[in-house]
Amino acid sequence: MKHTAIYPGTFDPATNGHLDIIMRAAQIFDKVIIAVLNNGAKNPVFSVKQRIAHLKAITKDLKNVEVDSFGGLLADYMRKKNARVAIRGLRAVSDLEYEFQIAHTNRRLNPDMETVFLMPSARYTYLTSTIVREVYSHGGRLKDMLHPEVEKALIKIYKK
Amino acid sequence: MKHTAIYPGTFDPATNGHLDIIMRAAQIFDKVIIAVLNNGAKNPVFSVKQRIAHLKAITKDLKNVEVDSFGGLLADYMRKKNARVAIRGLRAVSDLEYEFQIAHTNRRLNPDMETVFLMPSARYTYLTSTIVREVYSHGGRLKDMLHPEVEKALIKIYKK
Amino acid sequence: MKHTAIYPGTFDPATNGHLDIIMRAAQIFDKVIIAVLNNGAKNPVFSVKQRIAHLKAITKDLKNVEVDSFGGLLADYMRKKNARVAIRGLRAVSDLEYEFQIAHTNRRLNPDMETVFLMPSARYTYLTSTIVREVYSHGGRLKDMLHPEVEKALIKIYKK
Amino acid sequence: MKHTAIYPGTFDPATNGHLDIIMRAAQIFDKVIIAVLNNGAKNPVFSVKQRIAHLKAITKDLKNVEVDSFGGLLADYMRKKNARVAIRGLRAVSDLEYEFQIAHTNRRLNPDMETVFLMPSARYTYLTSTIVREVYSHGGRLKDMLHPEVEKALIKIYKK
Amino acid sequence: MKHTAIYPGTFDPATNGHLDIIMRAAQIFDKVIIAVLNNGAKNPVFSVKQRIAHLKAITKDLKNVEVDSFGGLLADYMRKKNARVAIRGLRAVSDLEYEFQIAHTNRRLNPDMETVFLMPSARYTYLTSTIVREVYSHGGRLKDMLHPEVEKALIKIYKK
Amino acid sequence: MKHTAIYPGTFDPATNGHLDIIMRAAQIFDKVIIAVLNNGAKNPVFSVKQRIAHLKAITKDLKNVEVDSFGGLLADYMRKKNARVAIRGLRAVSDLEYEFQIAHTNRRLNPDMETVFLMPSARYTYLTSTIVREVYSHGGRLKDMLHPEVEKALIKIYKK
Repeated sequence: MKHTAIYPGTFDPATNGHLDIIMRAAQIFDKVIIAVLNNGAKNPVFSVKQRIAHLKAITKDLKNVEVDSFGGLLADYMRKKNARVAIRGLRAVSDLEYEFQIAHTNRRLNPDMETVFLMPSARYTYLTSTIVREVYSHGGRLKDMLHPEVEKALIKIYKK
Repeated sequence: MKHTAIYPGTFDPATNGHLDIIMRAAQIFDKVIIAVLNNGAKNPVFSVKQRIAHLKAITKDLKNVEVDSFGGLLADYMRKKNARVAIRGLRAVSDLEYEFQIAHTNRRLNPDMETVFLMPSARYTYLTSTIVREVYSHGGRLKDMLHPEVEKALIKIYKK
Repeated sequence: MKHTAIYPGTFDPATNGHLDIIMRAAQIFDKVIIAVLNNGAKNPVFSVKQRIAHLKAITKDLKNVEVDSFGGLLADYMRKKNARVAIRGLRAVSDLEYEFQIAHTNRRLNPDMETVFLMPSARYTYLTSTIVREVYSHGGRLKDMLHPEVEKALIKIYKK
Repeated sequence: MKHTAIYPGTFDPATNGHLDIIMRAAQIFDKVIIAVLNNGAKNPVFSVKQRIAHLKAITKDLKNVEVDSFGGLLADYMRKKNARVAIRGLRAVSDLEYEFQIAHTNRRLNPDMETVFLMPSARYTYLTSTIVREVYSHGGRLKDMLHPEVEKALIKIYKK
Repeated sequence: MKHTAIYPGTFDPATNGHLDIIMRAAQIFDKVIIAVLNNGAKNPVFSVKQRIAHLKAITKDLKNVEVDSFGGLLADYMRKKNARVAIRGLRAVSDLEYEFQIAHTNRRLNPDMETVFLMPSARYTYLTSTIVREVYSHGGRLKDMLHPEVEKALIKIYKK
Repeated sequence: MKHTAIYPGTFDPATNGHLDIIMRAAQIFDKVIIAVLNNGAKNPVFSVKQRIAHLKAITKDLKNVEVDSFGGLLADYMRKKNARVAIRGLRAVSDLEYEFQIAHTNRRLNPDMETVFLMPSARYTYLTSTIVREVYSHGGRLKDMLHPEVEKALIKIYKK
């Protein structure tokens, strides 16, 4: 049995917290596809193309990880990719109920898919893309929380 | 890569909620070992031997599922079994923080193990072994929540 | 004593989860008035008139249920209707604190009103109007979660 | 239609928070029966008989309130009393999931019963029988939180 | 050692719940600076200048309290003011995780700052600026929840 | 104004998470008294005398920190010590409501005392004395989570 897991998300921008989840998933499943949701953010900082480039840079040493993008419903994308497992990082109680809503809805839309929740390292518990954007937009820096390439791109954008 | 997952618990008694998680795990991993914690409950209703028998009855049609028991720390048992993945069912917010405490502690004790959280069917969201014991000890019955053999054993015990 | 209960909400669209709460309320109170908030949603999918029509279709077999709409504060509307009880469905922890804020504020605005919380069936725990809109806007379908008339109207709108 | 509501609990001791819920229930339902669970506490401070006496003293001015006691399952007691509604006070998030477990189990045991949640005044949000016992056992006093008769009985017990 | 604490916020409008926290902070620290975030709200009801005036009116009897405003990151503002302590009011579970995200991010941006959480009186547990705006925009009034001057200004604005 | 803060707890055993809170408190307040509750645990692993010795060893480099013990109510002890501030570490949502219950009760018992919540480092978010005892009782070790002297004492006890 070959196990493919999809890790869907907005990744605007990808953080080391995302990378932490990706590395854990890559140890457990034969293949991990990171799937950038192309209709998730209203005014994204980075285009889907840029986000894919960032995720490829971040994961270039992980042999069984691919990067893709998708629109519409995750349940349909999973079917298309013949994948059973969707990966979600779970950091906090406030994540849980929203994630459960999504996961139960997906299960109803596609009974063959299973959402699997992984827990990031404690150091990434409080890291979100929203916080990263907020900090960098005001000229702040978060050490060891972003891949150098992502950080450079982010600084460049907010300098404009 | 062959993936073995351990599903540890007290299972006093095993419910259809546990079975739901086991069936989901058995679809995702090559092999699932249900591991009855033999020092978990102070005054268990069923002995470890009985609980193992119940779990074997419940899972007899699942080819890649085994039943075992263990004492001491899960982190040590995982190492002994050469297993990377521990499965936990996640039903509610109140579970989450306790599970995170355990999972972070296990990660510290055994950095090679990963806790993976699965979500049971909505119908089992409010089912726990504690509630089952409470209901049956007062002569109540919970339809479709227990394997017939477990239910029979439970009724017999509380008739005494 | 004749007991009238008001069930306020946006109902954009009404779901079977709402119907579940309405049926429970109709068993407990002599009369239930479903009150569509006409200033609740910024860009509603359905007009207040359409939402009233949906709610009437859904509840046509419930003799003691009426449908109405209101603007402004619920506390004022309750006073106008001479109603003591406001009904709210409670699905999850994340609902609770927001509902408590609203209920405590209403109690301050109108000490004669009481908010009564009902619990929907477990199968509707994860159903919200927001999720319904999201799924149908991407061409998905949620079986047994919407009244056929509501579903038809929803599909029609997103086909445009 | 005459509406009877049961308010079950341990009431060891009854507090003004309980009274607050009782008064609200008595405004909404034609009849309220306070039902002292006689197997709820392991080492109760007050006997069931004493707790009934306290509740009668507290509610003596409420015409439509009765006090009773019961053993076994609430679902069975509701059936015996021909009552549809069980009342529960909801103070905080930590209450909610436990209450939901109980309420969903009761619904399964007795589909004709409905659990209705009421919200106490903000001033009683943090009041529990456990805290009351803890404070009085160490010689502390909580002003305006207990009926004088309950307080007198409590002080007497801890003086021994 | 002289202890200065900063109490940052949007204060649109300041409520008696904010005042409650300010009075508690003023008892614990030698000096408290209320810092109005000047980029926090998108369409504020009151200008930063008006909010500063309200806070000055509310706190005019508290000798060790000052009012200021700031933009950008709190971590930078703390450094500029040579202040170690940031004060935050904590009302509810839903506040907590967001506050923890902010506080952990601030700690990373400025390891010399410490976020200190205070608990308002129970009567202000459910009071927020958002609820205040909602109620007053519909012509409602919340007794004892706003300083008379703030209330007068709020009524005036929504009369337009 | 000289500011004394009390940090009450059971400390069975003291962990580096406790030390983290103590160090933060010692930066904010002129004097910090760690107060071991001598009636908190039913079957403590360490005697109050041993716990005081551990806390003294852990904090020996902090000039403004003292160690003491107390029985009965914290509110009374605060009064006796002429201290306004009680310190509590806040790690997670599940802590919050219990802490709020205690803090509101204390405020009622002693209106001059204020509970101040501090947030430990993210790495100690999931560390509790209960988990420490559980791990060491089964022969496990938690690196960098305990002072060497506490760890030595703990290992010695469980070797018996």
